[in-house]
Amino acid sequence: MPKATISTLVAELEARGLVRDGHVERDGAIGRPAQVVELDGRTICALGAEVSPTGIGVIAEDLQGEVLFRRNVAIDVPALTPAQTLDQLARVLRQAFRRMRNRDVDVVGACVAVPGMVDVNAGMLVFSANIGWRDVDVIGQLQKHLGEHVPPLQLENNVRVGAVAEHARVAGQGEQDLVYLIGEVGIGAGIIVKGQLLRGHAGHAGEVGHMALGPPTSRCPCGRRGCWELTIGLRAFLELAADPDDPVRDPSRHIEERLGELRTRAEDGDQRVVEAFGRTAKSLADGIAIITDLLDPSLIVLGGYFAFFGDHYLGLVQAGLDARAMTPTPPSNRVVASTFGYSSALRGAAAQALRIVYQDPTLVPMP
Amino acid sequence: MPKATISTLVAELEARGLVRDGHVERDGAIGRPAQVVELDGRTICALGAEVSPTGIGVIAEDLQGEVLFRRNVAIDVPALTPAQTLDQLARVLRQAFRRMRNRDVDVVGACVAVPGMVDVNAGMLVFSANIGWRDVDVIGQLQKHLGEHVPPLQLENNVRVGAVAEHARVAGQGEQDLVYLIGEVGIGAGIIVKGQLLRGHAGHAGEVGHMALGPPTSRCPCGRRGCWELTIGLRAFLELAADPDDPVRDPSRHIEERLGELRTRAEDGDQRVVEAFGRTAKSLADGIAIITDLLDPSLIVLGGYFAFFGDHYLGLVQAGLDARAMTPTPPSNRVVASTFGYSSALRGAAAQALRIVYQDPTLVPMP
Repeated sequence: MPKATISTLVAELEARGLVRDGHVERDGAIGRPAQVVELDGRTICALGAEVSPTGIGVIAEDLQGEVLFRRNVAIDVPALTPAQTLDQLARVLRQAFRRMRNRDVDVVGACVAVPGMVDVNAGMLVFSANIGWRDVDVIGQLQKHLGEHVPPLQLENNVRVGAVAEHARVAGQGEQDLVYLIGEVGIGAGIIVKGQLLRGHAGHAGEVGHMALGPPTSRCPCGRRGCWELTIGLRAFLELAADPDDPVRDPSRHIEERLGELRTRAEDGDQRVVEAFGRTAKSLADGIAIITDLLDPSLIVLGGYFAFFGDHYLGLVQAGLDARAMTPTPPSNRVVASTFGYSSALRGAAAQALRIVYQDPTLVPMP
Repeated sequence: MPKATISTLVAELEARGLVRDGHVERDGAIGRPAQVVELDGRTICALGAEVSPTGIGVIAEDLQGEVLFRRNVAIDVPALTPAQTLDQLARVLRQAFRRMRNRDVDVVGACVAVPGMVDVNAGMLVFSANIGWRDVDVIGQLQKHLGEHVPPLQLENNVRVGAVAEHARVAGQGEQDLVYLIGEVGIGAGIIVKGQLLRGHAGHAGEVGHMALGPPTSRCPCGRRGCWELTIGLRAFLELAADPDDPVRDPSRHIEERLGELRTRAEDGDQRVVEAFGRTAKSLADGIAIITDLLDPSLIVLGGYFAFFGDHYLGLVQAGLDARAMTPTPPSNRVVASTFGYSSALRGAAAQALRIVYQDPTLVPMP
């Protein structure tokens, strides 16, 4: 491209607040010094929203990755109708839009993360066992609430945008192929290939929880036998680690508190908990080896309870993976733990919504 | 882009022989009629080459998909040194280059397909159990033979370029996500995501033959237990279908002849052969269900002996997949049989080498 064209393009990005002048580079002895241009984008943000079994949340994040707004509301989502929950979510989204307008920050888009199968193009949640929704037009209902003058809304699966958040964190170090594997009651994977989210042709990629990797005697609520999450899901882990009447298996208590107790027991040498780590880590490694044989990612990022017990799992899972996967020079595929904890879906939804700025910067209005 | 820029670009593509004027479109009542531009490329080709256990092959294919040169040489590759085989391959490649020069056809590149793990960037065959090569600098050795004035040479895995060939065949119908699964002594997968070959971060994606989907009692030559190809590889199928002294298990006979005999027996109602189809189809469907849960491809293309017996396998495998995979509306992921037979690697290698024309048309010289 001719220099004049580049100058014009950069000036336009600058006018939209997307880049700013950085330092001047004087490396070469000959010729004009080079003007470095940096990412700006402090007046541009996207909203990340989430619906989970325990509530809704919204954040606003600018191009620099700074969180400008954050609100979580505890709701018993499965007990409400989808319309009731989306009504509340629209209220918090409106609040976020208003707050950003008052700060003179442009919202370029919003992405809603949900647990379940989504039809990204239609903006529909096809099915979610966790919150009990089926064929819900999430984006359509939100648009009705929010009116016409809102930026583009997207719907995404919570695990997939978790993968986007993990990728955004390590992309600067050149990591472009990763699998984010979340361990909750269900098991799901978000797959990043060459820096892009892999959705599959109908949007169902990453549904790994029901791969038939467990004993064929076990029967899953989905109707199939031997589903992987029956062996390594949170419920299976708790059953291995404690008796039915043990307080750590009381579903009315907060999950992180219960997991914290099990961590203490393991540190005190409770063999049952240690064995539960060993058995779940073995099946986890076997499944990751299959994922690795297929996809050969550079990183496998563990989320959910796997990440909570990262210090116990990482070594066991890496060893199991190296012994089983076909990669010629282990450890070619590194297993790490997520650092986002339970906010990965919100962070990833915002990162996903921000992508449109990189794809088409002219969507950001001139001031 | 301004109209004048487009005209200049099209004129340049035309000068390079890549496009030509097609018909004139008069759909709109107002304005100048539109000039449709078609792909030309009859003076541009790429070479596809292959090293297999039974020989070497080279084809030349133009942008229209027409084969301009084809030569196969039967060689007992595992019995020779890599240098001896590559010496012969270089000879056939030189012959192809010469033939194309005489026809005034430009060769824009060549791609060599090999059975085994490749390091695409280094042009090295890391390891191939089938031909017994380890750490062979295939591209370096060929370049030494061919001299400096040859177009870019690439190295690729034979299954992966088979997937490229299958994709090239169906891309026009909008199929952009497919998995090509080949059944020979080993099992391998070539994965196309959004129209692009998925290689994985170190180039080992698609090594599905050693996924632990078989009984843990079976021991694989690779040193692991329960590898998938012990259950559905060609050897396992033949063991299920016939006794050890049966002529169809005589490795000195041509494989298609032996498979043809088994097909006749199945048609005559031989229960042992029919059961062999059933048992391998079950395990094949289980593995494809796992691949589908992960990748959600629109098409699964069966190659090798699965394609030879396509009429027996397709129905069984599709039913098994629909019963097991998590896709909500079967048959969302369609199982089909390859139509290329044993030439898929050569066709795919040529298609892969032709891609550089689409990525950078200026690589094609002006006449």
